[in-house]
Amino acid sequence: MQANLRINGERLCARLDALAHIGRIAGDGVCRLALSDEDRQGRDLVVRWMRELGLTVKIDAIGNVIGIRPGRDDGPPVMTGSHIDTVRTGGRYDGTLGVLAGLEVVATLNDAEISTKRPIAVAFFTNEEGSRFQPDMFGSLVYTGALPLEHALATKGIDGPSAGEELKRIGYAGPEPVGRPQAHAYVELHVEQGPVLEQEGFRVGAVEGVQGISWSEFTLTGQSNHAGTTPMRMRKDAGYVAAEIAVFARKLAKQIGGYQVATVGAMTVAPNLVNVVPNHVVMTVDLRNTDEAKLQQAERDLFAYADSIAVAEGVGLMRRTLARFEPVAFSPRLVERVEAIAKDFALPVMRLPSGAGHDAQIMAAVCPACMIFVPSVGGISHNVEEYTAPADLAAGANILLRLMLELAE
Amino acid sequence: MQANLRINGERLCARLDALAHIGRIAGDGVCRLALSDEDRQGRDLVVRWMRELGLTVKIDAIGNVIGIRPGRDDGPPVMTGSHIDTVRTGGRYDGTLGVLAGLEVVATLNDAEISTKRPIAVAFFTNEEGSRFQPDMFGSLVYTGALPLEHALATKGIDGPSAGEELKRIGYAGPEPVGRPQAHAYVELHVEQGPVLEQEGFRVGAVEGVQGISWSEFTLTGQSNHAGTTPMRMRKDAGYVAAEIAVFARKLAKQIGGYQVATVGAMTVAPNLVNVVPNHVVMTVDLRNTDEAKLQQAERDLFAYADSIAVAEGVGLMRRTLARFEPVAFSPRLVERVEAIAKDFALPVMRLPSGAGHDAQIMAAVCPACMIFVPSVGGISHNVEEYTAPADLAAGANILLRLMLELAE
Repeated sequence: MQANLRINGERLCARLDALAHIGRIAGDGVCRLALSDEDRQGRDLVVRWMRELGLTVKIDAIGNVIGIRPGRDDGPPVMTGSHIDTVRTGGRYDGTLGVLAGLEVVATLNDAEISTKRPIAVAFFTNEEGSRFQPDMFGSLVYTGALPLEHALATKGIDGPSAGEELKRIGYAGPEPVGRPQAHAYVELHVEQGPVLEQEGFRVGAVEGVQGISWSEFTLTGQSNHAGTTPMRMRKDAGYVAAEIAVFARKLAKQIGGYQVATVGAMTVAPNLVNVVPNHVVMTVDLRNTDEAKLQQAERDLFAYADSIAVAEGVGLMRRTLARFEPVAFSPRLVERVEAIAKDFALPVMRLPSGAGHDAQIMAAVCPACMIFVPSVGGISHNVEEYTAPADLAAGANILLRLMLELAE
Repeated sequence: MQANLRINGERLCARLDALAHIGRIAGDGVCRLALSDEDRQGRDLVVRWMRELGLTVKIDAIGNVIGIRPGRDDGPPVMTGSHIDTVRTGGRYDGTLGVLAGLEVVATLNDAEISTKRPIAVAFFTNEEGSRFQPDMFGSLVYTGALPLEHALATKGIDGPSAGEELKRIGYAGPEPVGRPQAHAYVELHVEQGPVLEQEGFRVGAVEGVQGISWSEFTLTGQSNHAGTTPMRMRKDAGYVAAEIAVFARKLAKQIGGYQVATVGAMTVAPNLVNVVPNHVVMTVDLRNTDEAKLQQAERDLFAYADSIAVAEGVGLMRRTLARFEPVAFSPRLVERVEAIAKDFALPVMRLPSGAGHDAQIMAAVCPACMIFVPSVGGISHNVEEYTAPADLAAGANILLRLMLELAE
């Protein structure tokens, strides 16, 4: 009987739609910055739904909310979830899909009067996006002990008040100790936020892990000179060095291949005049790979090249690390199950890494974890135009349902 | 007797100093934007000096001021001069040296009671810098007929009023027809505004001509994508294309060699975020050469490369020409005389092109013309720190004196 069990796609979409109305912005997007008034309204709605579904709602000291459906046995629940905070001009699926698909799983089990051996839990973690409080994945980091609670509470938001003050203000400084309940396993459904599934013709991604991230900022200091009167041999052109570094980053990604990506996203040139040799550039390089050794090799090669081209041009180079995360590998057994279940459902499935950060990568430190991706049309995310087709939302939720049922027995 | 004639370096420096006090700004710099109140005060001072030296002052309809010392014969004068307007944060030598060295030549001839066959004229042209009214070299362009007077008078300044209104307001809309008197020859002394003379150990530059200038703006339109979730093969990275164009511009300058220079001075990247592939870049490329054929080759190669790399990346490219001037060659006979006179004075002299624009290049269209350069310390110009040593100022003025005397006989 359970093999025929399916979630209700219309009900899932109705909840997504209702939540998208809170913090709605032009273009059908959403702005629910973490711990803002809009976030509170969103939380209130999801908590109300949790209670309506009979879940026991636990709110911890950093505002993570976990709704628990009892099992036949006590013990660690099989957990799913994600986040409901958004970036400033976000879409309606990023994070919310994982949370509301979790509620849809519970609703489906309730309707079918199915009990599970292990409890089932649906969580939403505080401030996953990091748009208001740094770092991102704040709530899950505190849950797993990777970020001290006091440190997180004291963190000032971009608009002034601390996370602790805002939690109290919106009524989500909860009584539960962080890190409870421990999870038996963690499965997160999320939109891909990239173009791969759509472009390659797959409907489901079995996420193997999350790419390690290395963000470097280079500050290049040359000499501003007249573009007409300064012979090439006498230049200390910070813009030229920046361009060489950007071209090298592309070569590096090609040469390493596989999942290696390299992006020069930001470059600010001064004095930025048509006839003056630039004397100052600040630029960033974003390197990602699923393989830590390869990521380290990419960093070494990039830094060595940047140093050598700067020295050759007589340009000063300062480098600082803006962010550095090691790759995370999800549980091979769970990845395999996602793939197998998708095939059972006759859904074209591919293995891929996640290029973006997710709470699941933090949870992977404390329990077996995995993610299910569904396609993002045009690869668009963190944008009001984010869209995933209803059939894909339902397909992802059905895989989540099946996998949680397996794990809960 | 004339071979032993020397200008008075202290008197020249005293005039430079007095003029530098008008429109003085922090750091001992000068702001005398064309046709501003400060420009009027500067003009009034220089006109007073001209009259004190016995010159007949003629002011034309675009505000060019020409002081004439009669010759034994009538006919076109041997002219020198430059400009006294400055950029917003200018130095005290750019332009003013050429004008005040001209007055110093007259003062020296007066003191020695030397008469010349041809008249001698000292001019300052309106709005050479182009910082307030476009284009630059405005006054000399009108003088030579290259820019219609009516067009120039109607030109709006960056702060609103037209050049014609401002000329009337400051009392320099003169009665003389433009283009009179015609010059027998034009010799301009100027600071180099570049580093070559100082770095190569020369004290005088015999300027062979002015580089042709080609300014292009490229607007690159790609697709903004997540730096983590977008595989390299799926990118349309406008920033990468910009970097390849900048690196190619450097290669091009090296490959063509000689006086070819290439500068990517401005580059503005959007959205300019560390983790987003840039979808929009506006960048400029400044190409200069003394040889028009080579400059055209550089343009062809650059444009072809830019097109090909944009197509390969799937990035849209729009190009527009911001400025285009052909190279100007100065009179070979006069360039030779500058060189020979410098050698007579035992001054180390080199031939070089001017990388910046000057009134002399406009005058070259209507009479034999040349320029004398003296070193700019550190190559710094259009900057309050512009500096040329007094001994070099005097050396340049003495070459000017000797050459004008030769040309006036």
